[in-house]
Order: sequence, then C-alpha cells, then structure tokens
Amino acid sequence: MHQGLKEFISENRELIQSELNKHLANLDIPVRLKESMIYSLEAGGKRLRPVILMASFRNYDHEINRVLPTAAALEMIHTYSLVHDDLPAMDDDDVRRGMPTNHKKFDEATAILAGDALLTYSFELISNDALLTDSEKVRIVQILAEASGPKGMVAGQILDMEAEKKDATLEELETIHTLKTGELFRFAIRAGAYLGGAQDKQIRHLDQFSRYLGLIFQVQDDILDVTGDPDIIGKPVGSDVSNEKNTYVKLLGLDRAVQKKNDYVDKAKKALREAGAETSHLMSLTDYFSNRER
Amino acid sequence: MHQGLKEFISENRELIQSELNKHLANLDIPVRLKESMIYSLEAGGKRLRPVILMASFRNYDHEINRVLPTAAALEMIHTYSLVHDDLPAMDDDDVRRGMPTNHKKFDEATAILAGDALLTYSFELISNDALLTDSEKVRIVQILAEASGPKGMVAGQILDMEAEKKDATLEELETIHTLKTGELFRFAIRAGAYLGGAQDKQIRHLDQFSRYLGLIFQVQDDILDVTGDPDIIGKPVGSDVSNEKNTYVKLLGLDRAVQKKNDYVDKAKKALREAGAETSHLMSLTDYFSNRER
Repeated sequence: MHQGLKEFISENRELIQSELNKHLANLDIPVRLKESMIYSLEAGGKRLRPVILMASFRNYDHEINRVLPTAAALEMIHTYSLVHDDLPAMDDDDVRRGMPTNHKKFDEATAILAGDALLTYSFELISNDALLTDSEKVRIVQILAEASGPKGMVAGQILDMEAEKKDATLEELETIHTLKTGELFRFAIRAGAYLGGAQDKQIRHLDQFSRYLGLIFQVQDDILDVTGDPDIIGKPVGSDVSNEKNTYVKLLGLDRAVQKKNDYVDKAKKALREAGAETSHLMSLTDYFSNRER
Repeated sequence: MHQGLKEFISENRELIQSELNKHLANLDIPVRLKESMIYSLEAGGKRLRPVILMASFRNYDHEINRVLPTAAALEMIHTYSLVHDDLPAMDDDDVRRGMPTNHKKFDEATAILAGDALLTYSFELISNDALLTDSEKVRIVQILAEASGPKGMVAGQILDMEAEKKDATLEELETIHTLKTGELFRFAIRAGAYLGGAQDKQIRHLDQFSRYLGLIFQVQDDILDVTGDPDIIGKPVGSDVSNEKNTYVKLLGLDRAVQKKNDYVDKAKKALREAGAETSHLMSLTDYFSNRER
C-alpha cells in the first residue's frame, strides 16, 4: 500500500475508534444490549466507510472534528446491516472476520435488537452533533436515510435475496451491488464533500466515482472468495461458490472478472479527475480497494 | 366513547391514513419490500400514537398539516417494532389483529428488512418535511431516535425478554412498560406539544401524563388478555398466561390490577390539569384507554 495512504488510514482509524468509544461509553442502556452493540462494532471492522468519508472531506476542508460523529454514525449503520445480514433467516453466517457472528455470540433476538439499536442511535448521534448547523444535520440525516433505507441498502438486500433463487445477469448484479454496497460508499463520499464545502458539480462527479468504487470493492470481494487466503479474509475460501451466490467470478470467470475490475478502476479515476480530486487519498484508496487482500 | 372524542379519532385517523398512503404510493422501491411494508402498515392498526400526537398538538395550535409527516413517521416506527417483535426469535406470533404476521405472510428475511426499512424511512420522511424548520426537524429526529432507540423502546424490548425468564416485580414491570410502550406515547405527546408551541414547563407536566397513559394502556392490555372478547381483541384470550408473560394480572390478580389502573388514571388526569390541558382530547383519551375493549 502507498505509504501516505497507509498513514492516512491508520491515523483516521484511530480517530474514528475513539469517536465510537466516546459515544458508546456514555450510553446508559441495558448491559446485554450494550455488550451486543459493542461486540459487533469492535469485531475487527476495517472502518473503510468512515475513512472514505474523511478522505472525501479532506479534499475540501481540514477541520476533521466536524465529520467524526457523522463518520461514527455511518459505521454504526454499516455494522447494523452486517448483524442483520448474518441472521439465520438472511445469510445464516456463523463467522465474520474470524469471530462468531452476533447471533452466535448472543442470540437471535439480541442480534435483531442490537441492529435496530445501532440503526436508530446513528440518527440520534447526528441530531446531537454540536459542531454541525441544523441545516447540515438535516441534510446528513436525509442522505443517510436515503442511502441506507428502502431506496438504498435495504433495497439492495432484498434484491440480493431474490436473485439468489435464480441466475442474475451482469446488469442485475451491478444494480444489487450499487444499492447494497455502493449506496453507503456514496453516502461517505457525498457527506464528506458536502460537509467540507464542495460545490454541487463536484459532488455529482464524486457520485459517479463512488458508484465505481463500490463495484470495485464488490468484484474484489468475489475474486478474494476464490483466490484469497482464508486466514487473511477471515472466512473459508469458496464459501460464495458453495452457497451458490451470484458473483462476478461465477458470471464471468476469474480472468474476465479481473478485467471488469480494471475497467471500473479506470472509470473511477476518470470521475475523480473530473471532480478535481485527482491528488486526493481517494485516488490511492481506489488502488487499495482494487488490490486489497482482505 | 365520548362523542367528541369519537369524531376526533375518526377524523384524524383519516388524515393519517391519507398521509401514509401519500408517502408509500410515491416510494419507488422493490415490489416485495413495498408490499411487505404496506401490509403491516395497513394491518388494522388503530393509529393511536398519531392520534395522541395530534390531540397533544391541538391543545396549542390548529394547523394540523404541520404534524402529519411526524405522525406518519411515528406510526412507521411503531409498525416496525411490531414486525420485529412478532419474529420467531422474539415473541414468535403467527397472528396479529386477526391477520397473519408479516413473516407468516411473507418470510422472516422480508419481515426483518421491512422493519429496517420502515425504521429508516421514518427519519427520511421527517428530514424531507417541507412545513418544518430545520431546527424543528432536528429536534423531532432527536426525540424520536431517543424514544425508539437503545435508551427507549429497544431497551424495553430487551428488558422484557430478560424478564420472561423470571418473575418480575411490579417495579420492573413498570420500567419495562414505560420503555417499551410508554416512550412512543411520550414522544407523541412531546412532539405534538413542541410543534404546537407549548412551553417547556407544560411539556414537563405532559411527560408525567404520558408516563401514566402508557401504563394505563398496558394494564388494560393485560386485563383484556383475561377478560376480553377474542373476536374483538384479535387474538386468543389467555395467550399471555399460556406464554407465562409477566402481566399486571399475574402479579396482582384481576381486582388489584383494575385498582392499579384507576390509580394511574387519577395521576394521569392530575398531570394533565397541571399542564393546563384539562379540556383537551387527551383527557377523554385517558378514559378511552382505560375502558377500551380492544
């Protein structure tokens, strides 16, 4: 990984970690609920979405405290989606990142409620953010709810479930990933740029960029399922294949999946240049996403 | 029921119904998700929480359009909580209000996602409300997230689950109901009063009132489980007893549960007088809650 990016990621991970700790430590709620929320928030997440948000913000502004609560809220939304996604009625996963999933560690009811709690608390956190204006808070709530709700991530999850029963086309696969994964990336990039003071035109180019970034992330996920090291990716290799999931590799074969990813990388970088953000950490993040090993 | 209250409820139910229809009809989302959300929103709910919100607002202001989106958001949150509460891992209910529960009509995964979608969309709806100022939207998001999240309703649900494994005391039972049911009532009354322009002191008295209103609602629920008509309440009589739930009737016996309810009614009305809202529909709603047959 590019040295500057490596430092950027590790610095910002620490910032987001202490922001998450701050909010959770002060939360006076039933013990089991709190333990379950913290368990999944602490379960080895790479904090990619908050880091992307912060990288996007840093193109336009440097006062990073202004985005920390929003970045923490985003990580909570992402975490809730994993907790619910792992449930027996959904993907039925027992292990995530090498650790028992929430409903395995606790129980199903607790996992459902911890997910609901993380989702709801993310909006509370934004509405209480002392560094944002009311107008900024409203805009962030609006685009976060759109990105994560029935028009966004939840739509992607239900389409993904429906597609599991049949063979999806490449177009259907792109729609699913754009909603299921891409919408939170898009939120990260939009929220960062908006709070940093980017112009609407720049944000439109960044929207294009984030669409491709989400797709790159997903193709690489599918590639790692076949070529990855199980100790590094934290789950058995080939689990998508045995679960008969629709993946890029299944649809295109490994070589053409890699080609597709490189095509997305080119398009992502073009969009980034058009947004005037070609020197930003978002550029090196694109390569990192494309080449990541876990 | 008091004639004026009957008209008030039926008029406001229609208003909230068309508000819900308006938001859902325009929602461009996957068909199955939309059907599942609408199914539970339309499944015979009495719209009590929106009606309470509107009754609270009407003490201070008459321009009822100003609270309709907030009232619709509240009904969505309440509905999501029922959908998740009915899941096999939670209360495992097959029937609600005489109809199959969401996961019985659709499936568990769809019910989980429909609940997530209703919860998230409620915040989107508030953030897009054209009639509220940004400062009002932020305040509503804040108190709604507090009431429904890990400090509020979700805390009540996890405490309720934990209490099922043992015999709860009266105090524990009150805490559970104050969180699980009372917090959304409190939100309804606070949000209505706040948007109507009530003073902070009045809102504090109304907070007291809403605490008792939630408890009255719950004791009557427990009483109806023993004395109700199954055709009217939409579930078998005695289902709480056979599920070994902690109820007021189990804890106190029927006669003392009725006494307890009457005690709550007296305290609720006293708080209402102190809030200067003794002539409002909230007064007759208190009697209605206490005497309801379903």
